[in-house]
Amino acid sequence: MQIISSSTIQSWERFYRANFVNSLTGFKSVSLIGTINQKGQPNLGVFSSVVHLGSDPALVGYINRPIQAAPHTFANIQSTGVYTINHIHPSFLEQAHQTSAKYPDEVSEFDEVGLLPEFLEDTLAPFVKESKVKYALTLEEIIPIKLNNTFLIIGKIQHVKLEEDIILADGFLELDKAESMCSNGVDGYYTTQLIDRYQYAKPGMKTKKIKF
Amino acid sequence: MQIISSSTIQSWERFYRANFVNSLTGFKSVSLIGTINQKGQPNLGVFSSVVHLGSDPALVGYINRPIQAAPHTFANIQSTGVYTINHIHPSFLEQAHQTSAKYPDEVSEFDEVGLLPEFLEDTLAPFVKESKVKYALTLEEIIPIKLNNTFLIIGKIQHVKLEEDIILADGFLELDKAESMCSNGVDGYYTTQLIDRYQYAKPGMKTKKIKF
Repeated sequence: MQIISSSTIQSWERFYRANFVNSLTGFKSVSLIGTINQKGQPNLGVFSSVVHLGSDPALVGYINRPIQAAPHTFANIQSTGVYTINHIHPSFLEQAHQTSAKYPDEVSEFDEVGLLPEFLEDTLAPFVKESKVKYALTLEEIIPIKLNNTFLIIGKIQHVKLEEDIILADGFLELDKAESMCSNGVDGYYTTQLIDRYQYAKPGMKTKKIKF
Repeated sequence: MQIISSSTIQSWERFYRANFVNSLTGFKSVSLIGTINQKGQPNLGVFSSVVHLGSDPALVGYINRPIQAAPHTFANIQSTGVYTINHIHPSFLEQAHQTSAKYPDEVSEFDEVGLLPEFLEDTLAPFVKESKVKYALTLEEIIPIKLNNTFLIIGKIQHVKLEEDIILADGFLELDKAESMCSNGVDGYYTTQLIDRYQYAKPGMKTKKIKF
């Protein structure tokens, strides 16, 4: 095994360093965030920083990069207070990645990459029709992270739309069956294979697998 | 597909709701966080909320649950300012999950579950010897999330120790080759399979795969 110091990491060329540091934190969720601006123009972007914050209330966070680097999703959420998070599957992976290109504000990534916007219930923001697991959120709080000018955007889960055959009897979702993907680094996309689920662990008790 | 409203989610029994909401956000990194207290007592806990914040400086966040629910890791990071993040692999998955049991403060999870603490360079906090990808962090900031009494803990990457044969020429880490795992829900653990890497996307250019 190799040991690498922080000064070595700091000395690297910036794309090499970005690839390395983005991989080091491990696999991450990867989703398309759908928003709309005040003129009714839809926007779609790929994000790999969605993080579960709590189940009661059901709160979800994501990290928005500095505003100059990622302005549209942030501005639309600020102005409308609503957004959608849509899982990505292999059937539209290439389109999902292409949403990361820097399109001008007046362009809809849905049109450019070839994905269908879908409007559900009273949610203003567009969902991705092709996605099998998706949910709407209302903005709760934007927390600035001053260390590097990023933001933690916190939303509360509203409507959820998903394929019902992936919900198990205990509420767990078989995301591998839905072929929801995860990512690594800035550009690697993966499917998954379940190894095991384990029962709630207690001191002095043997770890037990959940059979289902 | 099924549509579920926020009031339905709120009405569910709490374990069902926790399973559902924890799965809804998609696959996530899963790691062991190693810390030590002022008396030299090591602590180890499993966390699935690690999130990449930036590469320059190299900043990593994780969400700590309310202090009563997850006190030891938080207290040790506050008092020593240092911690390690260690990837989990199938060879010690059961031990990794077992660290989630609520052991008393004076007990080392390393001893209880059967993992080996490893001390590297000048880092006070223990690494997990069995892990193939691991890194030390120094505490930069603790941001309270008042909405649900959780915390965003932000650290700066220091030493990294990893298997050198997973580093590609562009800095990307082949985490699937190292069998780093990801998780879903509160208790599901997965390995992954690379589908593709894609080149930096630009408007008007066809999405291209990275060959390596």
